[in-house]
Formats: sequence, structure tokens, C-alpha cells
Amino acid sequence: MLNFEWYNPTRLLFGADQIAKLKSLIPPGAKILLAYGGGSIFQNGVHQQVVEALEGYTVVPFGGIEPNPHYETLMKAVELIRAENISFILAVGGGSVIDGVKFISAAVKFAGDPITIIRERMLIKENAIPFGTVLTLPATGSEMNSGSVVTIAATQEKLSFGGEALFPQFSICDPTVVQSLPTRQIQNGLIDAFVHVMEQYLTFPQQADLQDRIAEGILQTLIETAPKVLQNPSDYQAASNLMWCCTMALNGLISKGVKVDWATHAIGHELTALYGIDHARTLAIIGPNLYRVLFESKKEKLAQYGKRVWQISAASDDQIAAEAIERTTAFFKQTGMPTTISECTEDADKAIPFIVARFKDRQWTALGEHQNLDLEKLEQILQKSL
Amino acid sequence: MLNFEWYNPTRLLFGADQIAKLKSLIPPGAKILLAYGGGSIFQNGVHQQVVEALEGYTVVPFGGIEPNPHYETLMKAVELIRAENISFILAVGGGSVIDGVKFISAAVKFAGDPITIIRERMLIKENAIPFGTVLTLPATGSEMNSGSVVTIAATQEKLSFGGEALFPQFSICDPTVVQSLPTRQIQNGLIDAFVHVMEQYLTFPQQADLQDRIAEGILQTLIETAPKVLQNPSDYQAASNLMWCCTMALNGLISKGVKVDWATHAIGHELTALYGIDHARTLAIIGPNLYRVLFESKKEKLAQYGKRVWQISAASDDQIAAEAIERTTAFFKQTGMPTTISECTEDADKAIPFIVARFKDRQWTALGEHQNLDLEKLEQILQKSL
Repeated sequence: MLNFEWYNPTRLLFGADQIAKLKSLIPPGAKILLAYGGGSIFQNGVHQQVVEALEGYTVVPFGGIEPNPHYETLMKAVELIRAENISFILAVGGGSVIDGVKFISAAVKFAGDPITIIRERMLIKENAIPFGTVLTLPATGSEMNSGSVVTIAATQEKLSFGGEALFPQFSICDPTVVQSLPTRQIQNGLIDAFVHVMEQYLTFPQQADLQDRIAEGILQTLIETAPKVLQNPSDYQAASNLMWCCTMALNGLISKGVKVDWATHAIGHELTALYGIDHARTLAIIGPNLYRVLFESKKEKLAQYGKRVWQISAASDDQIAAEAIERTTAFFKQTGMPTTISECTEDADKAIPFIVARFKDRQWTALGEHQNLDLEKLEQILQKSL
Repeated sequence: MLNFEWYNPTRLLFGADQIAKLKSLIPPGAKILLAYGGGSIFQNGVHQQVVEALEGYTVVPFGGIEPNPHYETLMKAVELIRAENISFILAVGGGSVIDGVKFISAAVKFAGDPITIIRERMLIKENAIPFGTVLTLPATGSEMNSGSVVTIAATQEKLSFGGEALFPQFSICDPTVVQSLPTRQIQNGLIDAFVHVMEQYLTFPQQADLQDRIAEGILQTLIETAPKVLQNPSDYQAASNLMWCCTMALNGLISKGVKVDWATHAIGHELTALYGIDHARTLAIIGPNLYRVLFESKKEKLAQYGKRVWQISAASDDQIAAEAIERTTAFFKQTGMPTTISECTEDADKAIPFIVARFKDRQWTALGEHQNLDLEKLEQILQKSL
């Protein structure tokens, strides 16, 4: 186990009917920017509950934050906050709205051009506008971490930044929102959380025994929850387990004291940039092929994963490791995920030249916990993913 | 899963050589009360490291906080802080010192007689003196929670209180302290953490799937770590896993969304009050006998525990549940724990009349997650524990 620091001051309110507590969480007299996305909150009853809970506050709406939120869109909110002297932001939405609000929060008082927050992947430690969230889509974990991914539309750059000032002050996680989600969003949430865990867990043995057990526990819970919540999104207990797994998958806990990977995300982001494939679907396509290509450096952990998560027994650890990858792909397929690029686009051939060129452009050398995912391996992974 | 609120703002610095960072954690110019216990910090090098890290601060020492810290002792520190105008407390020690400091922190500015904080088990939400901790003994988890147990020596009352203002601002957890601990303290830490988890986990199925998995993960890690750390306390990785398990066992996470038990602690506290038996040893004695007496209401969870933690396969769930209790007792014995009162005192006979009378005095009706542990069952548990 490596040295680590754990700090996560977000107050999480989990369960049905928690939105009514908003008034106890936002300072009296605050002028609030109510930030949201495409408008699903008007269909699922969340907007109504939020408006009722905020009676007495001045609320300025800001809608239209898109999936993979755009810097260009978010800057309009920054200008609105400056013009209207707004003191608090309430993000009502999924990971894209929350990530977007983190950028807005950091940008309002930023000395300089806010685009540098993204371009230089800055660490924001102070001077952020306080914000809270009402989560409408379990997936990214953004409701309980200080990280954000924002896209500069003009240049198709999708980059991450974060910092201690960007933890939500509170997040309300009400699992009843799951019942009104399209199946595709539930599938995406399940697999997004699953691969978030894999990025932090599926590396090499690091003697961080409890972190491994917790990671395996999230994976097992997601595997058991997937058929229940997909079959019946109104199953409150299944929705609760999904939502809590999604939060716990990326609130920082399981990455403490270990080296992490995140190469599947780095490659997946490029598939989103090129084809607009949903983020989680890019992870389902790339993840297993990355494990195949990096089999030698990941096989010890793959075997542990195979034994503990999938209860595979086989003659050798290598066989268990190989079988564990197949089980992962099978699980992704069972949840309705694509596992090849061709299932998402007729232009799969473009992927290799486009993505290899993008990584070359960044004077990038290698990815992964061992920094051994080089351009050659990247090409192999993409080849298997076509 | 029940509704829950999660909030834990303690900043944890985990690993070797973290004590040197104290200066970045305590406000410049703070006048510090350095609170400690029996003086082991002068033997294990921790005092020296702390003093070096605090160069430039005014530091007022306060030693002698005893195990199961006494209200009477702690009030002397309260008076010292008031007299010397001290602004920050640094607890350097184990759970008793940290619990003691939580009381001191709450008492200094308390309007009224501070004894009421304990007697009325008050929730302290504000006006506490800020404090941090340097942990010297992994066991209680007090370094990352807002709870405290303090004993009023005059009346032999051992009572708990807490509240959001009593989270440590930071805690430094350096696993190298384990190497200088007496074996008895390591045994106590292992079993204290183990039973902390059992109190929150071994109840009945509550559809909190991830909380179960995390609880099982802590138990499995403690079982695997016990022989390693007992055989070689200088094994840094084993010590790290023990320390992280102890913190995670009682930082609030695994109790979120579930009904909890804590009857083993309630009974065990009385064994400490009567005989002075170490806290963790009382848990090793009472725990398994409580599971035996409450077998019917706990057997579903006992079977789950038997399958997942001990990999027991048997014809029926009842057999697995029964076997799981035997494995637990065997594990406690292997770590060197007593599992009967007679191993700790020649006066075991006193236990039943004394403890039953104490619970009667409190006009107590029943304990446990189902509130079904009544006086009759209490007597049965004690009978089996003699």
C-alpha cells in the first residue's frame, strides 16, 4: 500500500423524499443558479420537487448543459452568474450537468481566461462558487468527487480537471429517479461504474487488501443488481444498490494507496470524440480488449478478479485470468452493451488512424499503471475493438 | 436499504513519515494542547516526531489520559485550555486519548456543566475546539468518526456521545507505530475492529448489498492479516492493512442505510466496568455467545457470513450459520483472545447478578437490531460466557 490522503467533505443525502431537505442545505437568502441538462427533470417530477423545496429563494434557471458538457455552453452560465450576482449553484442532473457545474463554479472568480482551467488541467483549491447537486442519473460518481471532464467543442478536446474546492457541498441521491430512466441510461450507469472500478482495481497486486475487497464488492454488487434493475427499474432496492455502487465506484475510496490505470477512459474518450458513442459504451468496447492486449502485466490481478468476482476455478491462474475477460465481455453483452465499434457505426475503419494520430499529436508516450500502453499496443487494442 | 446521510470531513493522512506534515494541517500561530496517554509516545519515537513537526508553535502538554478515559481526568484538561487560552488540541494516542479529546473539545465552551454532555449523550453540533489526531494504536476507529465513549469514574458510568462538531479535522495514521506495540494491543485492535463490523453487519438481510460486501471485505482482510501482523508486527504491509481496516470498520460507512446491533458492546462495557477486562476482550467473550442465544433472529445473516467470509459449505443454512459461530470463536482464540470470563478473573460468578442489576437500574428494556435482547436473554448470554 502506498501513502495516501483521504478527504471528502461532501454531505450525501441518500434515499426517497430527500429533495425536500434542500432548504436545510442552502444558506438562507442565497441567489441560486438552477443548472440542468436537456429537460428530463421536467418529465420525471424532479424539477417540481426542487422548485417546491426552494420556495422563498431567488432561483435563476440555466438549462441546456449537453452530455459531455461544452466549455462554450458553460461559459454562458459563468456570464449569467457574474451578471446576476448569483451566490450558489444547484446542479440538477447526471454526471454531465454536475461536471459542467464544477467548471462553472471554478470559472466565475477565476483570474484569467477560464479555458486554461481545462487546457492546463488545473487543481482548483479556492475561490469556487459553492454548489450542491440533485442526482438524476446514477453513473459517473461526480456527485461525491472533485473531478470533472469538460469538452472544448471548437477543438474536440475532452479534458479533466478538479481540486478540493470542487467537491459538492451536498448531493441528494434519490433512487426513485431510476424508474423513469430510459433503459440505455441504466445500462450506461451500470457499466460506467463497473469500468470505473476496473480502472482502479485491475492493475497488479499492491498489497492493498481492503481496497481490493471493496472494489470486488462493488463489482459483485453491480453484477447481481444489473438483471434486477434492468428488468424492473421501479425496484427501489435494486435502484438503491445501483446508485450507491455508482457513487462508491468513484468517490476516491478504492484508489487510495494504489497505482491506477485509466487507459480505457483515455482511449474511450476518443471514440466519443470521433463518433459520439456514449461514454459507457466506449468503455465496454475498449476495456476487455485492453485486458487482452495487456494480459501479461495484468494477469495476476485478472486471476484474482476471476476467482473472487466470478468464482472461476480452472487448472491455472492464466486460464482463470483469460476466462475472467470472457466473463466480463459476456456480462457487458447481457446488459445490452456493444462490445465492438462496428455495432455503433459504419465507419469503424476510421478509428485506428484517427485515434493514433490524436495520441501522437499530444506527444503522448504511454498510458496505464505501468506506463506500458504504447502506440503499438493502442493500435492492437483498437484492432481487436473494430 | 434505509434512507441515510453520509458526512465525514476528516482529512486522513495515511502512511509512513506523514507526521512531518503537521505544520500544513494546524493553523499558524495556534496554541496547542498536546494530549496523550500513559507515555508510550516517549518510547516509540512518536513524541519526538511530533515535537519536531510542531517547531515554532506554543505547545502545552497534557498527559495521563487513561484507557476508558475518565471524565474527572479530562476536566483537568478543560480547565487548562480555559486558563491558557489554547486554540487547538492535538490528540497523540489511541482510541482512549482521541475519545477523551473529543470530550475536552466539546466541554471547553459548553454552556452548563460538561458532565451533562456525557449523561445526556448529547449531540455536539457547534462550539467545539478544533482538534486533530496522530494515531498510535489501530483499533477503535475514533480517528475518523465523531463518536466518543467516556467513563464517569465516580459512578462507574461508561457512556457514549458525539456529533458533527467532533470529527477530527485531520488524522495521521502511520502504520509503523504497530511495530512497537505489545502483542496484546495488536490482538485487541484486530478483534475490536472485527466486532465493530459484526455489530453493524450481523443483523438480518436488509438489501443493502454493497454495505454487506464492504463489511465482509473488512472481516476477510482482518482474518488474513491477523496471523501476519501478530507474527511480525514490523511487516509494514500487514500493519497498513490492519490500520486501514480499523479505521474503515467504524468511520460510519458500513452502517449507512441499515439497522445496527451494538448489544455486544453494551454488555461488554459492563464487564470492563466490573472487572477492568480490556474492551476488545469483552467483545471476544460476549459476541459469539450473543450470536448463539439470538441464533433464530440472526441466522440468515450468520449463514451469509459463513458462506462469504468463511467459505463454509454444508447441507443447510442453519448448519452453515452454526458453524460460522464456531469459526468466529476459533479465530478469536487463534489471535490469543479469551472467550470466557473465567479466563480473565477468578470472580466470574459475580458477572450475572452485577450486570443484570445494572441493566435493571437503567430501566432498560431490550437491546439489538430487533430490540429482542431482553433480561432473560442477557442472562443466557452471560451464562454461556462464564
